[in-house]
Amino acid sequence: MQERILVVGGNAAGMTAASRAKRLAPDLDITILEQSAYISYSICGVPFLLGWGDSQPSRLVSFDPTRLKAERDISALTRTRVEEILPARRRLLARRLESNDRLELDYEHLVLATGYLPRALDAKRAECENVFTISRLEDGLRLREFLEMRQVRSAAVVGAGYVGLMMTQALVQRGLEVQLWERSPQIFSSLDADMAEILADELQKRGVELHLNQQPRLEISGDRVSAILSGNQRRAAEIVLLDIGIRPNTWLAERAGIACGMSGAIQVDEKGRTSQAGILAAGNCAETRNLITGRPIASTIGTVAAQQGRVVGETLAGLNSRYPGSLETSIEQVFELGVSRTGLTLRQALQHGFRAQSVRVEGRTRAPYHPASASTTIKLVFECPRGRVLGAQIIGQESSAKRIDTLVVAISQGLTLKQIAQLDLAYSPSYSTLWDPIQVAANVGLRKLDGSI
Amino acid sequence: MQERILVVGGNAAGMTAASRAKRLAPDLDITILEQSAYISYSICGVPFLLGWGDSQPSRLVSFDPTRLKAERDISALTRTRVEEILPARRRLLARRLESNDRLELDYEHLVLATGYLPRALDAKRAECENVFTISRLEDGLRLREFLEMRQVRSAAVVGAGYVGLMMTQALVQRGLEVQLWERSPQIFSSLDADMAEILADELQKRGVELHLNQQPRLEISGDRVSAILSGNQRRAAEIVLLDIGIRPNTWLAERAGIACGMSGAIQVDEKGRTSQAGILAAGNCAETRNLITGRPIASTIGTVAAQQGRVVGETLAGLNSRYPGSLETSIEQVFELGVSRTGLTLRQALQHGFRAQSVRVEGRTRAPYHPASASTTIKLVFECPRGRVLGAQIIGQESSAKRIDTLVVAISQGLTLKQIAQLDLAYSPSYSTLWDPIQVAANVGLRKLDGSI
Repeated sequence: MQERILVVGGNAAGMTAASRAKRLAPDLDITILEQSAYISYSICGVPFLLGWGDSQPSRLVSFDPTRLKAERDISALTRTRVEEILPARRRLLARRLESNDRLELDYEHLVLATGYLPRALDAKRAECENVFTISRLEDGLRLREFLEMRQVRSAAVVGAGYVGLMMTQALVQRGLEVQLWERSPQIFSSLDADMAEILADELQKRGVELHLNQQPRLEISGDRVSAILSGNQRRAAEIVLLDIGIRPNTWLAERAGIACGMSGAIQVDEKGRTSQAGILAAGNCAETRNLITGRPIASTIGTVAAQQGRVVGETLAGLNSRYPGSLETSIEQVFELGVSRTGLTLRQALQHGFRAQSVRVEGRTRAPYHPASASTTIKLVFECPRGRVLGAQIIGQESSAKRIDTLVVAISQGLTLKQIAQLDLAYSPSYSTLWDPIQVAANVGLRKLDGSI
Repeated sequence: MQERILVVGGNAAGMTAASRAKRLAPDLDITILEQSAYISYSICGVPFLLGWGDSQPSRLVSFDPTRLKAERDISALTRTRVEEILPARRRLLARRLESNDRLELDYEHLVLATGYLPRALDAKRAECENVFTISRLEDGLRLREFLEMRQVRSAAVVGAGYVGLMMTQALVQRGLEVQLWERSPQIFSSLDADMAEILADELQKRGVELHLNQQPRLEISGDRVSAILSGNQRRAAEIVLLDIGIRPNTWLAERAGIACGMSGAIQVDEKGRTSQAGILAAGNCAETRNLITGRPIASTIGTVAAQQGRVVGETLAGLNSRYPGSLETSIEQVFELGVSRTGLTLRQALQHGFRAQSVRVEGRTRAPYHPASASTTIKLVFECPRGRVLGAQIIGQESSAKRIDTLVVAISQGLTLKQIAQLDLAYSPSYSTLWDPIQVAANVGLRKLDGSI
């Protein structure tokens, strides 16, 4: 008989785990259970959705259940909510949301890939028809429909994290007036404040009304939020988009007695195994480790989810794979600017007790005489006195932010400023300056390290 | 008294050595001797020159002697040819080309940064007014003047290496009809043939008349080349641009009894010291080592010259710096395509006795649903059975070729396909697919390694 594997959650981690396991061990009988109507979609693509016409959402979806069955021999049940896991019996209870039918399924191995949930609002506000969070494809579709049907002209975005920034941008590009509210003194807290300022300038240049250091309240009239209140300010807004934090979706795991870690996510070993025999976890519901500090983290990044899913798939197939951890690398486009980060910010490095310093340089993406040459700002965080690089942040035009990958490898390997300065990076006038901006930054860092600046 | 340092050659290596030494040891008395009229210019920028108006050549020049003296306290004598070195007396004989005055200069340390020379033509052909090589800024200026004054409409480029390709492109963009002749069966021999074919297609799409496997002769009438002859073909051409090889410029060193290595370039240790006490060498006249094979090479790459110059500058200032060697990384733009390479091609890896295999994948620069998503082709060369990556080649649109830098670091550090597949690279729909194309290639490589494809 085939070994039966159930996967709860059909996105980056779950899809990757299922596909990888099936490729390596074609005899496995794999079924994905997904609460929403879609599997295998790009949640990062939702901002693009707002600019597209009606027929386009399918472009965000890689597989529907029919294609998944035909091409990979993996079953998927959508609109199916898993309600309970009975680990001792290796059984799972679920409900088909359309028919309300109850399912009882047995498994040899279960993979939890339940992702994250947006931070809960109190019920009154969550039920307002013009309040949105974005954590599933449906959320994006509902928002787009609302924008179209109500001809919305203005929006308030609360929270300037990744989702808040992406949605702010998408709404501005759709022609809306957007207010962006953030409780901390800077936007985008995964950057150091000096780098975040460059982004804040870009947002303001595009007409975004930016409110920092504010924890606004929502004024409700009937079933709608009517305005944002902060101090004695009152700003009307037709819709409110909330990005006030997310948390790993662990309730199912916790009910089944599966241990969660310090980060709040499900504890897993490097092979993705939880505290319960037969149950693995991957993706944004599962804990991972920061590669530099070694500490447990709850990542919200899609690539980390896919990487963890891949290792879980290999574990299911009997391979001895391990996921070493994450540098929490990310990249985003904010209007004309790309912004990326990896490793530790200066603030994080100091918090973790590193004797850290940083340099920030402004370089060029191409030779200064190239007609398309543009500016790029690079910040390197490094440890004294040896100069091991702990983190990097890049903001720049064109695709210069993607150069963070060079630093991802360097930081993964523990390279020092000196070693980075001596890398044999690629140069021609169309693609770089003779010394790549990364090397310019490393060389300035070396001067700071030896006390000459 | 100040220690006197003479630097022969005022471009990437010489300028970097002088500037670095002076910054670290401001007491040094440094003079650069340069045969041409310019120092500190970008030879890689010459193709751009052809598209610019009259006033622009200065954009390729970072420093003239006056600014160099004022800003860095380094002297430079241009139009000054060094004719002999007397190492025993630590003296150098030179001639000012304008006045024909003879100079005798004593030094404590001498740096040879004489670069390379285009392969010599026989005198008759070299003197034809419509035959060009490009190794100095003046060559570019002379070519541009000729194109403008004679209203040239067609050109033959002989040799499809870096210079040949760059100049072909610049001439096509100026509106000329261009024939490109190459004696080997592929263009651009620093790529594997399958990758070079992609470039050849691009050239042909742009109207370049490509002749492979041909060693043409030049038909001369009076003081001009009138046509290109090959077999029984005769193709008229108004100008001929030659890129038939270059060699390290070592005649001065050889006359002074300085040892050259297997590669033909001046032998130096990792600190840049030659066989003669007090004499160092850096840049394309000096030998370096391929980081993977460990073998001596004569590099023609500007970044390597700058890196060597930097180490020589640090040696002059008494630091204990070393230049580890090169992966022979390069990048070029060929019309809409970027092309880059690092490490060994499959052909080179097999020639050097590695048990090598390769994979080639076509990925996307951005998420498939992103309106600007474009294709990028990545080839990875790796060693069996462990999967250590030995080399990489990328051809793609936008700036995807610059992603080679990620592989530069990976290869420098001896990473395997498995390690590359697990890197925490940056993803968002505007900059990558969820699995970066580099990781897609690494994963396909892993399947080849374990025999599943």
